[in-house]
Amino acid sequence: MKNYNQIAGFSKQRLDALSDGVFAIALTLLVLDVKVPLGEMIHSEAGLLKEIGTIAPSLLTYFMSFLTLGVYWVAHSSQYYYINKSDRDLTWISLFFLLFVSVIPFTTAFISEFIEFKLAIWLYWLNLILLGVMLAINWMYVNRKNYLNIEGKERQETNNAIKWRFIEAHASYTIAVLVSFINTYLSIVLLIFVLLNFAFGVFTLRGNQKSL
Amino acid sequence: MKNYNQIAGFSKQRLDALSDGVFAIALTLLVLDVKVPLGEMIHSEAGLLKEIGTIAPSLLTYFMSFLTLGVYWVAHSSQYYYINKSDRDLTWISLFFLLFVSVIPFTTAFISEFIEFKLAIWLYWLNLILLGVMLAINWMYVNRKNYLNIEGKERQETNNAIKWRFIEAHASYTIAVLVSFINTYLSIVLLIFVLLNFAFGVFTLRGNQKSL
Amino acid sequence: MKNYNQIAGFSKQRLDALSDGVFAIALTLLVLDVKVPLGEMIHSEAGLLKEIGTIAPSLLTYFMSFLTLGVYWVAHSSQYYYINKSDRDLTWISLFFLLFVSVIPFTTAFISEFIEFKLAIWLYWLNLILLGVMLAINWMYVNRKNYLNIEGKERQETNNAIKWRFIEAHASYTIAVLVSFINTYLSIVLLIFVLLNFAFGVFTLRGNQKSL
Amino acid sequence: MKNYNQIAGFSKQRLDALSDGVFAIALTLLVLDVKVPLGEMIHSEAGLLKEIGTIAPSLLTYFMSFLTLGVYWVAHSSQYYYINKSDRDLTWISLFFLLFVSVIPFTTAFISEFIEFKLAIWLYWLNLILLGVMLAINWMYVNRKNYLNIEGKERQETNNAIKWRFIEAHASYTIAVLVSFINTYLSIVLLIFVLLNFAFGVFTLRGNQKSL
Repeated sequence: MKNYNQIAGFSKQRLDALSDGVFAIALTLLVLDVKVPLGEMIHSEAGLLKEIGTIAPSLLTYFMSFLTLGVYWVAHSSQYYYINKSDRDLTWISLFFLLFVSVIPFTTAFISEFIEFKLAIWLYWLNLILLGVMLAINWMYVNRKNYLNIEGKERQETNNAIKWRFIEAHASYTIAVLVSFINTYLSIVLLIFVLLNFAFGVFTLRGNQKSL
Repeated sequence: MKNYNQIAGFSKQRLDALSDGVFAIALTLLVLDVKVPLGEMIHSEAGLLKEIGTIAPSLLTYFMSFLTLGVYWVAHSSQYYYINKSDRDLTWISLFFLLFVSVIPFTTAFISEFIEFKLAIWLYWLNLILLGVMLAINWMYVNRKNYLNIEGKERQETNNAIKWRFIEAHASYTIAVLVSFINTYLSIVLLIFVLLNFAFGVFTLRGNQKSL
Repeated sequence: MKNYNQIAGFSKQRLDALSDGVFAIALTLLVLDVKVPLGEMIHSEAGLLKEIGTIAPSLLTYFMSFLTLGVYWVAHSSQYYYINKSDRDLTWISLFFLLFVSVIPFTTAFISEFIEFKLAIWLYWLNLILLGVMLAINWMYVNRKNYLNIEGKERQETNNAIKWRFIEAHASYTIAVLVSFINTYLSIVLLIFVLLNFAFGVFTLRGNQKSL
Repeated sequence: MKNYNQIAGFSKQRLDALSDGVFAIALTLLVLDVKVPLGEMIHSEAGLLKEIGTIAPSLLTYFMSFLTLGVYWVAHSSQYYYINKSDRDLTWISLFFLLFVSVIPFTTAFISEFIEFKLAIWLYWLNLILLGVMLAINWMYVNRKNYLNIEGKERQETNNAIKWRFIEAHASYTIAVLVSFINTYLSIVLLIFVLLNFAFGVFTLRGNQKSL
């Protein structure tokens, strides 16, 4: 006799599609928080240029969160590149990961509204940490269940690369966010630099074998 | 001579893609209902922390609906994992299921605005029941038409597992919602517990063969 | 020497994915137009029930447009089920079809705001006609270019079925919308009946060979 | 020993799916900026017709951006039709391209609010140029890394076609936008004509071998 948990959640391809969908929407919803200034109050090109200045903070946080979502999408899709099976538990691990993805437009709007508040930045940091923790759980789970299409030395190297990236990424985010005790803007700029570094792949603690 | 209904709706893959899209968007739109407090009225970190407290109800309903969508996405994609054909009628059964998925952001916003009203919770309950009924119709239809890639004992076991999950899920939801006659908050917390139980697969009436 | 138009637009699979995405989003965005009543003005369960009555028109138009999008999604995905190639021109025919899909949330919001105005209903009718015309152009194009995976008698039957559905669908919509000269609500209810008939496949002019 | 950058970003299929998702959402979000007039102020069919006139500018910019997104989606999906591999760097090149795609609903809302301001049109122009530059980088990268499924003469011809389209497209956009120094509306109409020309494939500098 089988129970429901033994017959559900096998479709890895559908999980991929759902994940890509959630990321695509989160990436695109972010821009809704960058509000166009109201036309009635602006009467010259110079006035408009000045008004663009006032939306600079929301453009900054928009850019930061686009990078964040990009970094975690690359991380998630890279893990699933090596995963060849799915089950109900793995599906729910990914769903909780997607929960924290779908929350990014909120924590971003929060940081953009309260850009001078440490609390807003630490809330964002918490979001990043939770995303990382879910990815770590995801990887540990597929390792334990042998749901991977790599074996032996290759698997060991991939495990190490993922482990070190997890450590250096979240240590860097934490340092950047600690700077918010000095200045919150500086903290955001640092966070963007850390994310850009991961995007461009310029520097990692594990050597600098760039392929570009 | 063929009529239109005999030539349409064969693409199961497209139906999967549309379903994943609707779920992904509903999952991500939910967060738009968690409103960021207005910055002008907040002047200290402590004030901001207090303000986060006022959005707690919408965070709670957000979390509840994320779980709901997760549970029904797993249910829908699990059924389609075993389905190997599609036709026009099956397509429309899924479309009506998706209708009740797309309505979740509305019933969620409704419950979050009227969290102390029994009517709001019963409307949400109706939404859950309609989702379940469409899934039941879906499964009965593919059974009758033999659109399944499983046969014999495996099919019987899968049928049983789906039937029992349908019964225990909707009975649990109903009990949780009946509690709204005592207290609506308690009702929502219970609903979240029921959903979390399905997510983590901790306990089912059909034995406790967890695979995690 | 090749020009750009000769090297672009060959990916039918990507076109499918984009179409499913646009439909999924339009289906889900519709619900954003069903506004939750404001909590401050409502103090009893009875008051809330009464307030739900005031959103009935937007629920009606929401349901109508969900059916519309369902009908046209089935029509579009059914055509592409038989299409085995793509080129730049076919891509743009589909993109213009998607333009009129993406406009549905607007024409729906318009009809829901101006439910007693004939102009709003005729605008919606125009949207339906344009969707149908793009589908007709699409089908004529793939026929002329031989981009179909069906031949001979099967192709002839499919052509006929599509042609007759096009005629009966748009004639029915037009009759339903003509009723707006008597009463706009009646016109919308009729339109919903016509769409439901296509959804359930109950009755077609070409005989009643239902497969359900 | 491998670092993270050497194990990530190999899933071309996921990159395709994410791109289609972002485009589909951007295409559909555009319409949210076309605001339905408020019903309270309108009391006759003639009054409603007049009111539609006031939303003409936002319909115009909506149409322009739908064409823009269509043109760049065709360009992006056509490139990836010839690309048979992916790596982390290519993934990030596409992600930065998608950044400028996701920004289109903002620059469109901006141009629609400030349709008489040259600054708004030049901001839109900058968006188009950045999209084009990312596509050019993308194509140069896959050429250098040999991630293409075409060789020899075919590759040379495709390279040339892409190069010439890049030049004529961005030269045409620039000329259209320069006209904003005379009149901003004229500039937008010209831009729409240029985009329609690319959509219908009527005229290119490289000869007129239309396949329609």
